[in-house]
Amino acid sequence: MMKRQDEGLAFMLRYDNIARFEDGEVLILDRRVYPAKTEFVRCKTYGEVAKAITDMVTQSAGPFTAGPLGIALAAWECRDRKAEEQKEFIAKAEEVISNARPTTAKRMRLLCSECKEAAFNAIDRGEKPWEAAAARITELNDERYGKIAKIADYLVEKFPSGGHVMTYCFAETIVGMMLKKCKEQGKEIKLFCPETRPYFQGARLTAPVCRDMGFDVTVITDGMPAFVMKKEGIDVFTTAADAICCDGYVVNKVGTCNTAIVAKHFGVPYYVTGAPDGGHKTIDTVKIELRDGEFTLQAMGVRTAAEGVKGYYPAFDVTPPELVTGVVTDKGIYSPYELEKYFEGSDGKIKVVV
Amino acid sequence: MMKRQDEGLAFMLRYDNIARFEDGEVLILDRRVYPAKTEFVRCKTYGEVAKAITDMVTQSAGPFTAGPLGIALAAWECRDRKAEEQKEFIAKAEEVISNARPTTAKRMRLLCSECKEAAFNAIDRGEKPWEAAAARITELNDERYGKIAKIADYLVEKFPSGGHVMTYCFAETIVGMMLKKCKEQGKEIKLFCPETRPYFQGARLTAPVCRDMGFDVTVITDGMPAFVMKKEGIDVFTTAADAICCDGYVVNKVGTCNTAIVAKHFGVPYYVTGAPDGGHKTIDTVKIELRDGEFTLQAMGVRTAAEGVKGYYPAFDVTPPELVTGVVTDKGIYSPYELEKYFEGSDGKIKVVV
Repeated sequence: MMKRQDEGLAFMLRYDNIARFEDGEVLILDRRVYPAKTEFVRCKTYGEVAKAITDMVTQSAGPFTAGPLGIALAAWECRDRKAEEQKEFIAKAEEVISNARPTTAKRMRLLCSECKEAAFNAIDRGEKPWEAAAARITELNDERYGKIAKIADYLVEKFPSGGHVMTYCFAETIVGMMLKKCKEQGKEIKLFCPETRPYFQGARLTAPVCRDMGFDVTVITDGMPAFVMKKEGIDVFTTAADAICCDGYVVNKVGTCNTAIVAKHFGVPYYVTGAPDGGHKTIDTVKIELRDGEFTLQAMGVRTAAEGVKGYYPAFDVTPPELVTGVVTDKGIYSPYELEKYFEGSDGKIKVVV
Repeated sequence: MMKRQDEGLAFMLRYDNIARFEDGEVLILDRRVYPAKTEFVRCKTYGEVAKAITDMVTQSAGPFTAGPLGIALAAWECRDRKAEEQKEFIAKAEEVISNARPTTAKRMRLLCSECKEAAFNAIDRGEKPWEAAAARITELNDERYGKIAKIADYLVEKFPSGGHVMTYCFAETIVGMMLKKCKEQGKEIKLFCPETRPYFQGARLTAPVCRDMGFDVTVITDGMPAFVMKKEGIDVFTTAADAICCDGYVVNKVGTCNTAIVAKHFGVPYYVTGAPDGGHKTIDTVKIELRDGEFTLQAMGVRTAAEGVKGYYPAFDVTPPELVTGVVTDKGIYSPYELEKYFEGSDGKIKVVV
């Protein structure tokens, strides 16, 4: 049932390693300790799935596999009840899981709802609803991976063979997809990953994915991009984004704008991957989350600064369009100043700027 | 004997807290654990002083107090011998301490030699040579602090009252001096200190000095300067330097150039403090030390990245003159393109660009 996923990807990017439904449990890879330890949090109820998402056991795109599998688990939990009661139970699970993290509630509900519908149909047909729900999220993931594969195609065209590529933070699936394309094309690239403080996603997550896929990868601190761009030469700087606004402003993990400025200074092109967000016509509708500044005063759980000093922790920063070379979408690469053209795609008016 | 030092400075900047000679021992503040713990390494022989310097118990300008005090300790160790034997013993100590760290051997020998001469004179006069040696390094430190006080005067003129100042790494005495001047002038500034990976000097050393001197100080990660400059507004970016070459290139802790590029992008002036180094007519004579990359793969002793990825650790980066607004010296502020004028100072031709 989970077989259609892309087996060419690194361990932590394959659906059944991110999260899987198995023998009446949902297993979720615990990214809080990965890669130091490869451990799965085992959830026996959909409530435990929701709690694991709230507690950030899995992050980035991970919850969008784990959450919908919670619907499958709910269907399993209530398998001995009457059909109508099963549906009520599953609908309640959709509600709880969708609200596990408020900022992603909308997208999570969409996916959970798809799985719920699949489960309901299975109940009506006398089939196993947990299998139907799990199968549906696999289908949806396959669709998503298909889009990301197209993005990777366009992005990899920008890498010279033997080129040096700098990333930032952990761009989840797109990193794996772009490396897979490089391998298919025999393009040997070398990666430089800023560690991405305060959470070290670059060091902890991106770097091992690159290593697992057989690439030469070097972790640097977030203050080293200038040195590396000048000394080692970087051909492309690329990141994913939490939001690409229609006016070309890019919202991504704090440090992205800092590095984009340095890239611009050295004439290194910056390509951001993902579709423009129709929900943000301009950057003005984006609110940058200021998280607890205390988190910046520690590293890997060890306090760095003395008592009595303040920390500061904006989760994201905003990179203006003048620092963005191109937005790499599933329909091609667009200038950040012409993102409205992405939405004209359905009627054949796409202008692919490559 | 150690009384002339500047009592207005924060704990870790006062000579007798950096290192002191006391009851036949040299006590050195252990910066490897400060400020989490305030501990002193107690040396009973000059050999132990040299080893403490080699082991980086004290860093930055600290060894230039601790090392010369090792000469005082040597004089104490051999106090019961004949005069000629005492001199031999002290001369040997000068040799050993000067070579505790190879890159700073020249400056260390100069200071140790001054203390040795003071000790020899005391021996000849029948006075206590350990007191004479300790007194001499205090005199020399006072001279140095006097120059730094002048630099601080020129630098602080560039801070608007209530201004926001960004630092990088730990600029040792100049940070304390500039804050003291601010207090004297009633200039309330707010400081933002990038933590300075991989060694966290910004978080561990600069921030507590600012706090101890009563200033509002915020620690940020090395990826946050762009966000902070835009959101909070920064009036001045300032650092010390490991070397200011005569052609205006600045060598300082890696991350300095990264932040200077970001400062330039936002129109924030960058002032570097210190005298031009006559030993480096151009940047071409500077060799950037590449330290063990493994150090970048940990934070506060905890491993961050998985096995099989590489780390990278250039100790310094190079900021070109086009990113430097001014070089703040004891003779005034110079354009990085006119540093030769600093050396014309003795004949009254100084052009102070303020």
